Amino acid sequence: MRFAEKLAAAWAANDSLVCVGLDPDPQRLPAHLSRDAAGILAFNRAIIDATHDLVCAYKPQIAYFAACGAEEALRESIAYIRCNYPAIPVILDAKRGDIGSTAEQYAVEAFDRYAADAVTINPYMGHDSAEPFLRRADKGVVVLCRTSNPGAADFQDLDVDGRPLYEIVAENVARKWNANNNCMLVLGATWPEQVARVRALVGDLPFLVPGVGAQGGDVEKLVRAGRTADGAGLVINSSRAILYASSGEDFAEAARNETRKLRDLINAYR
Amino acid sequence: MRFAEKLAAAWAANDSLVCVGLDPDPQRLPAHLSRDAAGILAFNRAIIDATHDLVCAYKPQIAYFAACGAEEALRESIAYIRCNYPAIPVILDAKRGDIGSTAEQYAVEAFDRYAADAVTINPYMGHDSAEPFLRRADKGVVVLCRTSNPGAADFQDLDVDGRPLYEIVAENVARKWNANNNCMLVLGATWPEQVARVRALVGDLPFLVPGVGAQGGDVEKLVRAGRTADGAGLVINSSRAILYASSGEDFAEAARNETRKLRDLINAYR
Repeated sequence: MRFAEKLAAAWAANDSLVCVGLDPDPQRLPAHLSRDAAGILAFNRAIIDATHDLVCAYKPQIAYFAACGAEEALRESIAYIRCNYPAIPVILDAKRGDIGSTAEQYAVEAFDRYAADAVTINPYMGHDSAEPFLRRADKGVVVLCRTSNPGAADFQDLDVDGRPLYEIVAENVARKWNANNNCMLVLGATWPEQVARVRALVGDLPFLVPGVGAQGGDVEKLVRAGRTADGAGLVINSSRAILYASSGEDFAEAARNETRKLRDLINAYR
Repeated sequence: MRFAEKLAAAWAANDSLVCVGLDPDPQRLPAHLSRDAAGILAFNRAIIDATHDLVCAYKPQIAYFAACGAEEALRESIAYIRCNYPAIPVILDAKRGDIGSTAEQYAVEAFDRYAADAVTINPYMGHDSAEPFLRRADKGVVVLCRTSNPGAADFQDLDVDGRPLYEIVAENVARKWNANNNCMLVLGATWPEQVARVRALVGDLPFLVPGVGAQGGDVEKLVRAGRTADGAGLVINSSRAILYASSGEDFAEAARNETRKLRDLINAYR
């Protein structure tokens, strides 16, 4: 199944636009888990088991695994989802981007080594840096557009012939990069006005939206700004607010409760 | 020693602006080496031994290691340089970029796990995505500016108030991000006019310049466009043209000859 179809099916099956971000910081794991790759894997599995019927996607953040040499825990976490909950797409958050021959290696990393359904990429280097990802027609390619962090304005908002750079990126992706219908855009939840502007430009292209929860984005404004006509179109990520809802042995149950709360809050405005 | 001092010392000691890019593609290793992590490490060590007195830096490209799960070969390759040729700086080419808390993990990956002297980053997400790298004052931070690939023009050349985006990036880095004097810029060798424009803007900020060799950049135009008043200021990378100069058992000797030729060609125009 192609990525766009898999995502649409997951939206419908779980009646959810929530994506749980797997950003396992060894220093923040519950005290009863080991602060190493084994602890990370056990933590991820428990979070996944507790939330799989409430989400439309998982988004492991590769930086947390790379910092501590836990590549195998990342591979096994994704394999765990694909084996036990194969209907839930996995978006590897890696924000890769390089010249074509190198980007080809990154595509192998994301799609073959880790078997992710989609990967995030950075558009700064242009179309040929995206091409090795885009031509994997069964896989999703999630391109940074207007990100959730304060520094996003530094370059993404610069005025290009009367329009912000992020709109130019959005149009390039929607009109040129999306030939295989496998693109998404990253729009920060902290900027609902920008989400609305991009939605008006790109039709039903799905958005990956980080920045609710720990980063403070307003869910109602976000959903009203970004939803498509059928009440979907959004993959709304929360990481820390779900993963670390409790630091005790009930962390998975607490994560489930936070995920359900976020799902229901979002669904109230779809 | 801080990165900028280490780089200046290496320029002087080896009378060289050449950086050898370590992009070990298992499919292109000489036939007598195994096409796995052990083969990659043996290949890298031989290339390093054969070129260490002719270069100002090494630049391992993490994508080639990540695609085949050879993280340990990357760590050991960098450790081999630091142990045997400690005066040669190592620039980890990773083009990272993410929100602050995630960028912090990437800084740990580059500087602590791999013990690189510098890392390449992508500016698209703005100042807070760079900050976790920049505050490591002893380490180098190499920011993409105008890259060597054809798609570079898609966004980097967009007109922002009469000036291309890459110049705005260059000025931000030179005036704001370089408070610890630990920044460099990536300028593609394929675009000497852009190299000259940025040199005029940013004083003596060092440039990492990929794109000679396999990518076809003109060395004379590049050096005249990018050198600083003291005939340095450039870290000119060649990867494939050096690594794969021979596919036989003489690959290291052939790499040495290519490296010397490039060094001498560059030095003729400094």
